[in-house]
Formats: sequence, C-alpha cells, structure tokens
Amino acid sequence: MTRIKLNRTAQSRNQPVAEQNRTKFQDAGVFVMNLIGSPGCGKTTILEYTARHCPGQSAVIVGDVKTALDADRILQCDIPAYPIETGGSCHLSAQMIADTIARLDLDQLDYLFIENVGNLVCPSTMDLGENIKVGVLSVPEGDEKVRKYPALFLRTEVVFINKADLLPYCPYDVERVKEDCRKARPDVKVFEVSAAQGTGFGPWMEFLRQPDV
Amino acid sequence: MTRIKLNRTAQSRNQPVAEQNRTKFQDAGVFVMNLIGSPGCGKTTILEYTARHCPGQSAVIVGDVKTALDADRILQCDIPAYPIETGGSCHLSAQMIADTIARLDLDQLDYLFIENVGNLVCPSTMDLGENIKVGVLSVPEGDEKVRKYPALFLRTEVVFINKADLLPYCPYDVERVKEDCRKARPDVKVFEVSAAQGTGFGPWMEFLRQPDV
Repeated sequence: MTRIKLNRTAQSRNQPVAEQNRTKFQDAGVFVMNLIGSPGCGKTTILEYTARHCPGQSAVIVGDVKTALDADRILQCDIPAYPIETGGSCHLSAQMIADTIARLDLDQLDYLFIENVGNLVCPSTMDLGENIKVGVLSVPEGDEKVRKYPALFLRTEVVFINKADLLPYCPYDVERVKEDCRKARPDVKVFEVSAAQGTGFGPWMEFLRQPDV
Repeated sequence: MTRIKLNRTAQSRNQPVAEQNRTKFQDAGVFVMNLIGSPGCGKTTILEYTARHCPGQSAVIVGDVKTALDADRILQCDIPAYPIETGGSCHLSAQMIADTIARLDLDQLDYLFIENVGNLVCPSTMDLGENIKVGVLSVPEGDEKVRKYPALFLRTEVVFINKADLLPYCPYDVERVKEDCRKARPDVKVFEVSAAQGTGFGPWMEFLRQPDV
C-alpha cells in the first residue's frame, strides 16, 4: 500500500509538468517519442540509425543512471544529444525533460527522441509530455516480455523487436510477440529490425514521415 | 529530492524486516542468494541448471511484475518454487520474502535462491536478508552495463556473464567486463556461462559447495 501511495504522489507531481512539456512540443510542432526498454535492448543503436536517416531535423535526450556513454554515441552521428544522468533514479521525469528542453530551440526541430533509463518497469507509467511511447524488445531477451511487463505495452503506440539478426541462435516466436502486443493494444505498430545491421527500418522511416497516431 | 526521501522511507521500513529474515535464515542454516539482472538476462535459466545440479536441498522464490511463468519453469525441475507477483512493483521487498518464507520449512533447506524482478536498477539497494547478491549480465546486452549501473555491482559478491554462446555474434569484451566488476568490488567472483547450453557452471557449483564470502 505504501509503495502505491508514494508512486501516486510522484505521478501527481509529474503530470502537470508533463502537460507543460506537451504544450511546448505542440506549439513548436515537434513530434516527441519516449523510448523505453531493458538495459541493452538496443535503444541507442536504433537511435543512431534513426538519427542518421531521419526525414527532418532531430535531437536526442538520453537518460542513464550513470555515464553519458550513450549520448556520446549519438553525438558521433552529428545529431545534438543531451545526456541526463539520473544519479540513481530508475526513470526520467517530466521535470528532467523540462530542465533539458530549456536549453533547446524546439522551433528548429521536427523530431525529439527521448531515450529513457534502461528499465522495463518504472518508466512505463511516467508521462514526459511525449506524443508516443515506443517499446523496445530484443530477441535474446526471450519472447514472453510483453506478458510479463504489461504496464508498458498497454501504453506503447510503437514496439520494436530488435536484434532480429540473432533469431537463428535464440528461440523466439516473433508472431507470438506481435500477437501479445496487439492483445495489449490493438492499434500498435510493430517493427522487426536489426539495428546493429541497419536492416528492417523501412516501415519505421515511413511511419516517421507521417506519424498516424 | 522528493524521490530520494521517498526511497529512504521505503528502505528504512524494509531494513528491520530484512534483518528478521536474515536471523531466520541463519538459525535454519540456509544460504540465501538474491539474483538481480535485466529482463531476459537468463536468471531463470541459470536457476533451472543450478536447481538440477545443486549440492543440497534447495528452493526458489521467483519475483515477477506479472505472471508466474518463471516459477512454473522451476517447478518443472522438481524444485519447490514460490512465485511472488508484485503487481507493478519494480523490486522484491523484505516483507514479500517474509510472507513467503512463512510457508517454507527453512530447516529442510541448504540453499534458497531468490530471483528478483527483472530490473538492473531498483532491486540493487533493497536488502532482503540474503547472504549474497548475485548480478546477472548477458552478452547480447553489451559490455558497458557494469559502468552504467554501478549501484548493483558495488554490492554483488558474485556476477554471472551469461549467454556466452552468443559471443561469436555480439561484440563483447569479456575481460573488460571482468575488470569493471573487480573495479566496483575487488573480491567479486565472476562466472562466465551459457545457461541455455549448460556450460561453464563448474566454478559456480564449486562455490555453492563452499561459499567463501
């Protein structure tokens, strides 16, 4: 009971700031995506590919408990990257995003990608003011994750199944995962990619050109 | 600041219960291990192998946000398994363990394995009354996780590097990870295994026979 009450307090403080962020994003005409997935599922590699091929001006906010390693990788793609080192917190908050976007010229952007802390649980219910949540799964994690972490997949308009290049070496039923995603959220879009090999991104790029959510 | 205060409250409530659990474990002479790792890093598969080859009587407590899928897998190894479905909470608490061990005859056990919720952040600082924390890494997650999630690896007496069978297909510097583990905690024991293939477990079994921590 205690935990639920504490979480509600954190969320009720977060929500007004998320709404302020959302208004700023809308006013500037920037489409904002909040990427959520386990540590090592490939969020940064997906963003490296996406940033390089993005059909418009983009920037990336990168959350990590410790280090700015991921932000450095994005910067090497010549895309503006803004690290947030949470110093222990297990998810980004709307206030962290508000503090970061104060340093950005949102009017210059078409897309803003937010890479959340590597965690399939805590970031799921925390609104940052984004347009959509993007769930990132990866083949070697196993194919039951949608059922085990339902709070996220009820909220994700887009899901990546990443590391498809490892399908020959890992037991993984792609169709079952897609079905689990659709059961959680019938309008979900699922993209099967290998970010490391840069394959399968066509439908994602098409989606970015005209996000129909 | 708010978050830190809330976490401290949760921890100060948790600690006395953890100490009570620890006393019960010591009185019964059971060695208790708290396994922590990302979703899909292979905690359950490591426990399936370990339970089958354990040099003594063992039981497993399995935490998951949702479903008892992992506990069912352990039960199929003919080992007693006790699922804890946290219903949203991102880590196990000492109270959840206290409630579960009330149903166990600890005197009959030599080893108790606790599989925490799949999460590299939140379970790190929450004492359950265990003898040791066991961190589980996996090759396809990438080799920078020890540096990105330091709170866990400062506290782990044992670390697994799992899915070694995928080393030919994933860039991963095993020696660098071992060095990062030792930097975080010089007395750490690192075991490189493939749980899916059941290889590399010799040193772990030796450790279980005589846990020198």
